[in-house]
This record gives sequence, C-alpha cells and structure tokens, in this order.
Amino acid sequence: MTAQTIRCKAAVAWAAGQPLSMETVEVMPPQRGEVRIKMIATGVCHTDAFTLSGDDPEGIFPCILGHEGGGIVESVGEGVTSVRVGDHVIPLYTPECGECKFCRSGKTNLCQKIRETQGKGLMPDGTTRFSVDGKPIYHYMGTSTFSEYTVLPEIALAKVNKDAPLEEVCLLGCGVTTGMGAVMNTAKVEEGATVAIFGLGGIGLSAIIGAKMAGASRIIGIDINESKFELARKLGATDCINPQAFDTPIQQVIVEMTDGGVDYSFECIGNVHVMRSALECCHKGWGESVIIGVAGAGQEISTRPFQLVTGRVWKGSAFGGVKGRSELPEYVERYLRGEFKLDDFITHTMGLEEVNNAFDLMHEGKSIRSVIHFDN
Amino acid sequence: MTAQTIRCKAAVAWAAGQPLSMETVEVMPPQRGEVRIKMIATGVCHTDAFTLSGDDPEGIFPCILGHEGGGIVESVGEGVTSVRVGDHVIPLYTPECGECKFCRSGKTNLCQKIRETQGKGLMPDGTTRFSVDGKPIYHYMGTSTFSEYTVLPEIALAKVNKDAPLEEVCLLGCGVTTGMGAVMNTAKVEEGATVAIFGLGGIGLSAIIGAKMAGASRIIGIDINESKFELARKLGATDCINPQAFDTPIQQVIVEMTDGGVDYSFECIGNVHVMRSALECCHKGWGESVIIGVAGAGQEISTRPFQLVTGRVWKGSAFGGVKGRSELPEYVERYLRGEFKLDDFITHTMGLEEVNNAFDLMHEGKSIRSVIHFDN
Repeated sequence: MTAQTIRCKAAVAWAAGQPLSMETVEVMPPQRGEVRIKMIATGVCHTDAFTLSGDDPEGIFPCILGHEGGGIVESVGEGVTSVRVGDHVIPLYTPECGECKFCRSGKTNLCQKIRETQGKGLMPDGTTRFSVDGKPIYHYMGTSTFSEYTVLPEIALAKVNKDAPLEEVCLLGCGVTTGMGAVMNTAKVEEGATVAIFGLGGIGLSAIIGAKMAGASRIIGIDINESKFELARKLGATDCINPQAFDTPIQQVIVEMTDGGVDYSFECIGNVHVMRSALECCHKGWGESVIIGVAGAGQEISTRPFQLVTGRVWKGSAFGGVKGRSELPEYVERYLRGEFKLDDFITHTMGLEEVNNAFDLMHEGKSIRSVIHFDN
Repeated sequence: MTAQTIRCKAAVAWAAGQPLSMETVEVMPPQRGEVRIKMIATGVCHTDAFTLSGDDPEGIFPCILGHEGGGIVESVGEGVTSVRVGDHVIPLYTPECGECKFCRSGKTNLCQKIRETQGKGLMPDGTTRFSVDGKPIYHYMGTSTFSEYTVLPEIALAKVNKDAPLEEVCLLGCGVTTGMGAVMNTAKVEEGATVAIFGLGGIGLSAIIGAKMAGASRIIGIDINESKFELARKLGATDCINPQAFDTPIQQVIVEMTDGGVDYSFECIGNVHVMRSALECCHKGWGESVIIGVAGAGQEISTRPFQLVTGRVWKGSAFGGVKGRSELPEYVERYLRGEFKLDDFITHTMGLEEVNNAFDLMHEGKSIRSVIHFDN
C-alpha cells in the first residue's frame, strides 16, 4: 500500500516576528530514504524562538518550526531499512549517515551528508513535503516537529525503546542531550572532577545532571537569577553562586573556591563574556572549558593566549557531541534505568494550538520547558 | 669532600638593553637538594634575547641568562639522590618534582614546586648562588647556562645518556623539545594526519620533525620568509606557502588545499593574528590548534565561538608538554637511535665570549641556533 498525502494540523510560521498560525497542512508521503512520523510530543526550545524572532540569519519562511520531538513511524519511503512502521523515534537535527567524511572520522557527530539542503529548509532531494493550499512550506532544522505529521530522512531518526514515554524523552532530541552530552561525551568528565556550569536554564541543568552522573565531586552552578538555585541543587549542584554578589570577577571567585580552578567548565548561555570567564576559571595545566551556548551573529570570544599555553583547553559542543542514531538510544536506556529524570524540566504541558503561549512563558522566564502533547 | 666556591667565566646581563659582559663570577657550592653543573654547551634562544631587551616584564637584573644547556654534574648538595658527579644532564626550566598537585595530576608538565623562587631569580631557599666581587647576581629561568658553572635544584635536571653529544642535545633543553613535544605530546598527531605549521624558525622546524616522525601524511609549512622553505622541505614539509602570495586569508587557502582544513595546526611565532589563522584553518568537527609561540604582554586572541562549537579545539603547549625528568631522557634516546637529527638546527658555534654575536645573528635572521661551546 502506497502512502498518501495526509492533511493535518500544524503551527506555521508565515513570517519572522509573527505568532505561529494553526493551519491545515498537506504532508506528502515520504520519498526514497525518507520516513513520515506521527508526532506524539515536542518540546519548545529557545532556538525555535530565536529563528521566529528574525535574528537567525539562516531562518527561512514560511516554515514549520520545532526540533525537539518524539513520534511514531507512520510510513516509510523506498529503500528505508533501519526503521519500520510503528517504531518510536526521536527526530535528529544532526543526522548520522555513517558514510560521510565526518561520520567516518569517528571524531565528531557533525554529519554533513544533508547539511546543504537542510540549511535551505528542504529534504535531501531539494524539495519540501509540506504545503498549505498548494503553497510550499519549508522544513526547519530538518525536523519541523510543530506538526501532527512530519517527514524526515531515515538518517535523521534515532529509533528508541518503546517503553520510554515520548512525552518525556522528546527532550533528548535537543536540550537535555546537549547539556548531558557536553559533560559526558565532549568533556568526558571523570569521577571526582570539579565542574563549573554557567547558566542554569535547561541546558545548564542538564549539564548538572551529566556531571552528577559522571561522579563529579563538586558542581558549581552560576547564574544571576537566584530563583534557579533550588532546582540546580536538587539536581546535583553542590554550590550555587551569583556573580553579581561579588566585587571580583567570577572566574577569580571560582579559582579561589577551588584551590586553583575547576577541572571542567561549561558555558550554557551564549554570552561571549561568560565564555571567557568559563575558560579562565579553569585550572592551570589541565582545565577544559566547553562552549555550548550559541552567541549572537558576529560576536567573538577572546582571552590572553597565556591561558592556553599554560594548559587550559577551549572547545565546544553541538548536540552534546552525541551521535544521534548510534548513541542517543542509549541515553533513552539510561533514562529507563532511572539514572536520570526528565520531569523536573517539564514545567508546562499544552496542546499544539497553545504553542504561542509556550513562547510567551519562555520569554517571561517562567518555563524551563513547555512540552506540547499531540492528541490526534 | 665538601664542594668549594668556584670562580669561573660567565656572561653577565647587568641591565636590560646592554650587551652581556664577560665576568669572573663566584659560583657557590650546591646547597641541600641542589647540584652544580659544569656547562659543556648551550644554545642561545629568542627568549634570552627577549628578556635582555627589557620587554620581559619578569626580567630581573643583574642576571646570568641562558636556558638551553647541556652539562656534567660537578658536585651535589646534601640529600641529592637522582644524579651523581659525572652524570650528563640537561637543565630544565620546567622542573619535575613528582610531588606537587601538578606533577601528581599526570595531566601536565607544569610543575609548580619552585615556581615562585624561580620567577624571582633565586634558588628554592630564596638566595642566589652567583656573585661578582661579592655583589649577588640573579639566576634566570632557574638555569643560567651562560656560565662555565651553574647551580640547579635536583628536580630541574634531566639525566641523559652519556653517549649523546651535549653540544647537540643541549637543544633538547628548549626549542627542539618544545616543537616536537607539541606535536607528539600535546596534540598526539597520529599517522596519516594533516598538519599546518605556522612559522619556520627553530620551533616550527622542530614541529615539522615531530610531524614527520608521527607519520603525518601532509605537512604544510607557512612563513613569509621563503628562504626558510628549503630546510623545511628537507626536514619533512610536503608544502611550503607564503601568506603574502595569496589574496585570500591564509586559513582559507589551507582549507581549500586540504578539502576542509587540517587535522592539527601549530602556531610557532607568538603572533595573535596568526594564532587565529591557525585555529581557523583546522577541519570542522575535529581540528586541533596548538599555540606554542609566546605573544607580547597584554595581547589577546579572538575568534567566533562557532569555530569551537563546530568541533575545533584550541589549546597550548609549554616545553612541548614534556615532563623533563621522566620523558626528556627518552627524547635523547630517540636522537641516539637516529630517529631525528639536530645538526640542521645548528647554524653557528662559538665560544662564550662571542655570545653577543649570537644575539646579533639572531636579530638579523641569519641563524636558527647558535650553540656556545665551553672549552674549559
């Protein structure tokens, strides 16, 4: 039986700076190497808001936003072998083809196989699967999870254990994996290490969970909003500090707190000044700082080279350095084994038609994550 | 038999910006934990010239410069167990105590045990062993090799194979180890990797040797002085390029030459703009850039954080990350096994009284290394 075009509800971003609009969209059948997914749940992330704001130079409209989803395979295109109808999957904005120079290197999760078309809001064949009244609608991050149905390339799907509630593990499609992975995959924090985490939003809190799971002996959370300290402590932070409470630069405060600096630090905000502090609070000789936050266009980081010559390492991480198809399913298994919880992150749940409220809550600083439940 | 004060020749730097002056100095016997060395040879390095110029904010005068030496143990102080009279040694400006937090970490060669007194031009007990007519003369980098005899802490001596000619392996006391070690210890360049080396002075040429020994498939040397290309090629460079010969930034040239960038790059100059180029010519996903050169006081490096978030790593290296007592002797063994040569580096040899000529040759760009032979 060949799959047909589906008509379903989706939140369409017609233009930058405007609220999303609920529409009936046509979702074409998956083409060769593609898979159509019935969405079960999706988180609403800052990156969606960033693109919607118009500040993202790569934003393309009209599109369907959303990239932190969980769904079930509805139909598969020709040649698809790794998933079948009914499988539970997490869409991957960082795919894993296993064949490109990047995948073959074994050194990175930044598969480049479909990067060009993905950046243009298109499927690998250069076309889109979405339309409204015949007008094409672009994909977003290759995922477009703010739709009851979406289409993805097979290489952009992590098949996960069906026992896992998609309403929670959808968060592993972006934020939580980004934070935990930066700690466990990129930095490879070891037992007993000292860690500083700058910014206690969803990413920073996930980094705390990762540090706790790694057995860090000291986990210092840094934020100017002290209301975030309670949850940070609950998740594993041993110290929470507010830079505004000190006269000396925060890196100096941390160096003094830790007899020379931390073994690892993580910047989870996207502020280039904080990135410098994060590097400079690291211990001479071996301290490593990982940039996770995404800075504004054109902004630059800087430091004295002496910081590096005396042994500090500056690196970064995207999607936590996690390879989506080969490594993300194990994150789901660890969740199922109770090694970490996700419900602390989910401050709000709602239907798709309330997605604009999720953006408002985010902008007002009232949510960690809003998760949309599709009740189709 | 207790050691006595020795009177010998040394080149004294009485003040910044003045030529060195040949003097008869008194060299006190080694105190507890110290060793007195009869110098056989010493290289003259840019760092000596930098301090002599007065630009080094940590320069202390009057002092005896020199830090790239080879000598023979003449006498030992109380409690010294790791070397004995007659042993061949290379002085270490980066000591290795084996006991401090840094040594115990196993992650760095930056032993801090005697850093404070060394930075003040003094032995660990806070006094100096040199004087001229009763006037104290300071130590320099804890080594002061521009003297027929010098005194060092036991922990600042690498005991090396007596078969090695000290007139050559003295270069392992600084420059050659710094370049080779950055490649082999800090970056751990693997067989088949692509490498870019910025600056083809003594450090850069040593990095080329290290890259060749590591089995790098492509070794790109970069310098604005094309007269350096011949030796670079002889030592292993597969490509030599002059940034001034291109209209596009050199990082872009290298990215195009190497299908996306090199696996490893090394900055061997001390120029913060070149440090940026070195980072940005690295391959997305895994390229690592190592800063070896020492920048001027107050200068800063900068880049867009996106460079790191997309997988590049920025680090640095001092003395090639080599632990002086436990690892440097093996470098001497590799030299003795013929794995690399040192004579290409030695463009001039001379007596101590000609040391000012060595600085002139260096400033005129006419030497890689001048090596002083002591004929006492």
